[in-house]
Amino acid sequence: MKLESFVQGQWRAGRNLIEIRSAVTGDVVAEASSGGLDLRQTLAYGRETGGANLRRLSFHQRAELLKKLATYLGERKEQLYKLSFATGATRGDALIDVDGGIGTLLAYAGKGRRELPNAKFLLDGGVEPLSKAGNFAGRHIVTPLRGVALHINAFNFPCWGLLEKLAPALLAGMPVISKPATVTSYVAHALARLIAESQILPDGALQFLVGSTDDLFDHLTCQDVVSFTGSAATSQTLQRHPVIAREAVRFIAERDSLNAAILAPDAAPGTPEFDLFVKEVAKEMTVKAGQKCTAIRRALVPSAHLDAAIAALRTRLAAVTIGDPELESVRMGPLVGLDQRRDVLDHVATLRQEAELIAGDPNNFEVEGADARRGAFLPPLLLHCADPARATAVHEVEAFGPVCTLMAYGDLGEAIALTNRGGGSLVASVYTFDADTAAELVFGVGSFHGRLLIVDRDCAKEQTGHGSPMPQLLHGGPGRAGGGEELGGLRSLAHYMQRTALQGSPAMLSAITVSWSKGAPLIEAERHPFRYHFEDLAIGQSFQSKERVVTLQDIEHFAHFTGDTFYAHMDEEATKGHPFFPGRVAHGYLLLSFAAGLFVDPDPGPVLANYGLDSLRFIKPVLPGEAIKVRLTAKEKSPRNAQYGEVRWDVEITTGAGDTAATYELLTMNAMRAD
Amino acid sequence: MKLESFVQGQWRAGRNLIEIRSAVTGDVVAEASSGGLDLRQTLAYGRETGGANLRRLSFHQRAELLKKLATYLGERKEQLYKLSFATGATRGDALIDVDGGIGTLLAYAGKGRRELPNAKFLLDGGVEPLSKAGNFAGRHIVTPLRGVALHINAFNFPCWGLLEKLAPALLAGMPVISKPATVTSYVAHALARLIAESQILPDGALQFLVGSTDDLFDHLTCQDVVSFTGSAATSQTLQRHPVIAREAVRFIAERDSLNAAILAPDAAPGTPEFDLFVKEVAKEMTVKAGQKCTAIRRALVPSAHLDAAIAALRTRLAAVTIGDPELESVRMGPLVGLDQRRDVLDHVATLRQEAELIAGDPNNFEVEGADARRGAFLPPLLLHCADPARATAVHEVEAFGPVCTLMAYGDLGEAIALTNRGGGSLVASVYTFDADTAAELVFGVGSFHGRLLIVDRDCAKEQTGHGSPMPQLLHGGPGRAGGGEELGGLRSLAHYMQRTALQGSPAMLSAITVSWSKGAPLIEAERHPFRYHFEDLAIGQSFQSKERVVTLQDIEHFAHFTGDTFYAHMDEEATKGHPFFPGRVAHGYLLLSFAAGLFVDPDPGPVLANYGLDSLRFIKPVLPGEAIKVRLTAKEKSPRNAQYGEVRWDVEITTGAGDTAATYELLTMNAMRAD
Repeated sequence: MKLESFVQGQWRAGRNLIEIRSAVTGDVVAEASSGGLDLRQTLAYGRETGGANLRRLSFHQRAELLKKLATYLGERKEQLYKLSFATGATRGDALIDVDGGIGTLLAYAGKGRRELPNAKFLLDGGVEPLSKAGNFAGRHIVTPLRGVALHINAFNFPCWGLLEKLAPALLAGMPVISKPATVTSYVAHALARLIAESQILPDGALQFLVGSTDDLFDHLTCQDVVSFTGSAATSQTLQRHPVIAREAVRFIAERDSLNAAILAPDAAPGTPEFDLFVKEVAKEMTVKAGQKCTAIRRALVPSAHLDAAIAALRTRLAAVTIGDPELESVRMGPLVGLDQRRDVLDHVATLRQEAELIAGDPNNFEVEGADARRGAFLPPLLLHCADPARATAVHEVEAFGPVCTLMAYGDLGEAIALTNRGGGSLVASVYTFDADTAAELVFGVGSFHGRLLIVDRDCAKEQTGHGSPMPQLLHGGPGRAGGGEELGGLRSLAHYMQRTALQGSPAMLSAITVSWSKGAPLIEAERHPFRYHFEDLAIGQSFQSKERVVTLQDIEHFAHFTGDTFYAHMDEEATKGHPFFPGRVAHGYLLLSFAAGLFVDPDPGPVLANYGLDSLRFIKPVLPGEAIKVRLTAKEKSPRNAQYGEVRWDVEITTGAGDTAATYELLTMNAMRAD
Repeated sequence: MKLESFVQGQWRAGRNLIEIRSAVTGDVVAEASSGGLDLRQTLAYGRETGGANLRRLSFHQRAELLKKLATYLGERKEQLYKLSFATGATRGDALIDVDGGIGTLLAYAGKGRRELPNAKFLLDGGVEPLSKAGNFAGRHIVTPLRGVALHINAFNFPCWGLLEKLAPALLAGMPVISKPATVTSYVAHALARLIAESQILPDGALQFLVGSTDDLFDHLTCQDVVSFTGSAATSQTLQRHPVIAREAVRFIAERDSLNAAILAPDAAPGTPEFDLFVKEVAKEMTVKAGQKCTAIRRALVPSAHLDAAIAALRTRLAAVTIGDPELESVRMGPLVGLDQRRDVLDHVATLRQEAELIAGDPNNFEVEGADARRGAFLPPLLLHCADPARATAVHEVEAFGPVCTLMAYGDLGEAIALTNRGGGSLVASVYTFDADTAAELVFGVGSFHGRLLIVDRDCAKEQTGHGSPMPQLLHGGPGRAGGGEELGGLRSLAHYMQRTALQGSPAMLSAITVSWSKGAPLIEAERHPFRYHFEDLAIGQSFQSKERVVTLQDIEHFAHFTGDTFYAHMDEEATKGHPFFPGRVAHGYLLLSFAAGLFVDPDPGPVLANYGLDSLRFIKPVLPGEAIKVRLTAKEKSPRNAQYGEVRWDVEITTGAGDTAATYELLTMNAMRAD
């Protein structure tokens, strides 16, 4: 199979052919055709065609594309599993890669739909008053960058890597050029073919580049983003490319990480947490043959539990069947290729200068259903470092394979210091049933980590694993791990968008952001604002109620009706010396209820329901005999479907004297016009 | 005056002396002693002593330090004004620098107090469910980095620069090493002396480094942060230092920016917006002698208004008095030094290859009260570029002085394209009274800018100016402007903190984050939770009410009492076919009111008031005859002062059948124990 690039809307062959060999048999399984493409044009096509096509859509429409794509791929994933065997992946490994990627698309589709407005830009934070008289204010908007997101992926998860970077970029409104690692690019290529064939994404939204990036970096601008996953060495070279600093191109890196698993002192042999630790360490060594940036490279145990941990891990690892990943009996396939195997063995040799190999022999192990001399097979290799405080390689050298170093610690302070010797990691896991221990470890190692997993008997059955980044949570870590942030739900959209502070008059800000704020003009329309269909309701449209006096009798009545006989409403004497109340005051809920009575428009109409309320603050208590009135102003709108949309109202209850008694935001669902 | 560095708690002289000359007279005004300090130790002292001291404090305590410091400096600022004259700053210029810096401290003190919890870490977003049965979930925490923030400042605002970077770092809990630009370091030095003398900040919180950074970068780690303001050339060199990429040190840059002011087509001569444009362009050319990274370098006007704009600007600039900044009659002082003057003239020569000088003559202008041959004086220089679409230098070469290039555009699309030719800027301003024009420009140039100011007659009197970063709003911009973000209120704390995803059982997450979430254990205490003082109330402490049936009579009664006779509560017939309601339903406010009646504990006690409510959602309508009950659980606490603190309660109203009818968060103020 000759792999091509998908650029400028077409599949194109590159100038050079690179042979790609099976991890299992060593046979050539594909040829990547690389180089010779006009990458300046590729960038321009993405920016112009792809960017324009995506920015034309709202967040909800983009979320819909992700959902469709996930469904389409879900129906065709079997071919991706099959291709993955040659990379060394078992069916379980491929499931993580393929289904994990599709699941990430779905997660972003759901979050986009639920957590983003149906709009083309975002508001970030509220209005910031910037003047005394209120004629000048500020607010932040967030808009998609006008460039291309260049995604450079690692070999280990050709599908997940492509999709987990693609989903937030597309949702943000930014087109993508995805470059897979060559050694497994035939799997990514098949995925990219499926995506292109589906015709679900608009033109230019995804381009796919096999082979090298050639001169691509020379043409990057401040509107482009690079998101890299791979080795620290390559990452540093790319990050130091002169264009990155010159154009201040955003550079997100996810690279080497010597992740730790920490067995806590309470998790002694015999506890569920001890068993969970052993199981997780063994699992992380063998899944994907340990070729995961999130795998456990350092296993920390209290000195007292060291022997038990060694014994338990030896037993568990000895049971791992290595061989042809296509066989159901095989638990661990080969590494991705012979080069990778050589690399790992080199790194193990370095580690062995500081640590002893205590389980697994790279020169003597059984391989099922495959020729051990042709495939890139290795057994799980467990080391023990006796003096981890003085050692350096065990904290710094990542053997990207089924390799882990066990090390003992004295007290929690030592465990924290050792863990942080990793110099910044993607993830650490802690095995404890003691919340104080967990908190001490979390705050001790937190600033060195992107993710911390606490495993105990309560979450044992449902926990998703040390090695699994979740779309909802941050993936990335400081320092050696690259300093990047990916995923984290909608947080990752920020990489593909620019935050901009706007300053102007409240009227101008309201008009630009399509969000009314105090000080902006109130639009008084002919009819009550509840009489307008969603489309016809203007932002700023307002209703000012008449006054209603809140009598002592009302308060008494409400108290007995609802049962809310709190002393501040009932007993003048008891409120003496109260820090906030000058005497008996009206219930906050009475004010809310009267306000609703004052602004409601009772007959059937476009307002279908009040479905919620946000940010209610009682500013000034209302005393018996005081009047209240209420202002209701359409603040924001977000269409939900063809039948109705959400309207957010700014509400202010004022007293007869004109003081603000309460402010809140009211949420209604408003019908669209029937036509 | 010999300037020293303040490192490891002591003022220390460096090995070399560097002469610093007055911008006005050319006389030596100070000598910076630079080099030869042990910067590895300086970093270690900051990390260990300063970091530990700051992390011991809560956000509110750190905010209090900022406030005290602002007050202290405010009482001593006169000496800073006086020193500033020698830098070329007029009293007005010094005001921006000194009072602007103190104001930023105060803004952060206020925001820290109002917008942050009184805690030592932050929660970022809510709980993310990660499993079906609910035994595994995720949440993000944000904790201070364990390194030092290295602040490298520009010469133009020695006080503001130091303080605007210091405030968010300290508030976040991170110690600072501040390195001023040498040419005005005597002003920063005086400020640092004041801060040290005040003894307000804990040991190690601020170190001050005069002169060069020597080998400082070699010792940075992933826990340190560099925040640089200055030239693009220096910034790129620093950013490409191998340690930055190797350790993934966070690098925030604020550098060259060719900011634009855009006169909109509607702002014709004779409109207030035209006059505001002319005034602002002239102001930005002359304040600080145009040595502001936010100054207007490119003034875009519609072709039709070009001649009028030229005439108006010429008149205005001709009236600018240049001379000794100490004189009250002088509007513009000299540049910071003769080197800077030479640089500016070199850049002007480059610009003149594409643009014509139309106002100001560098070889012929009057200087009041100073010797023009000894000081670094220059007049405002206005250029006109006739073919801005083909020109390059006018969009790329920053003459950091009183220099601006005028250019005409045809339509708004052209104005947008020209503006974005700056390749990323800190700020652009738009002069228009037309909201559609403003919106088109904002979304056209938004992703290239950190800040956009819309000036019109409404905000004219109160607008804070094109050139003034505000602590509440983002300062920074993409591309040529460096890609950094500063200020932006609490947003800038993120630079100094690490976001970490936590995963675990709800019980574990609640215990670590000190925030109860659904699925975590409910603590049922002896007494009603409202009976506990702030300190004694446990997170998770809970109250489960008895049931109350909501009768049709209740609904009728409530409707007539409050006036809320919305048809969905009153008219079975009218709700037919309603998308959400199966028939008449109880008012949401009736549920809230009954819930309060069910959970209230009426007698005087530690709960002083219900001061607000957040995130109320009505999940399922309650029909007449259905019962409701309510669960109230202490979710979070934040002490406010010695008398009381805020408690956030998780509230869930369920129906008799066990369905969730409504969820919300209730806010109460709870008294501390009297002892």
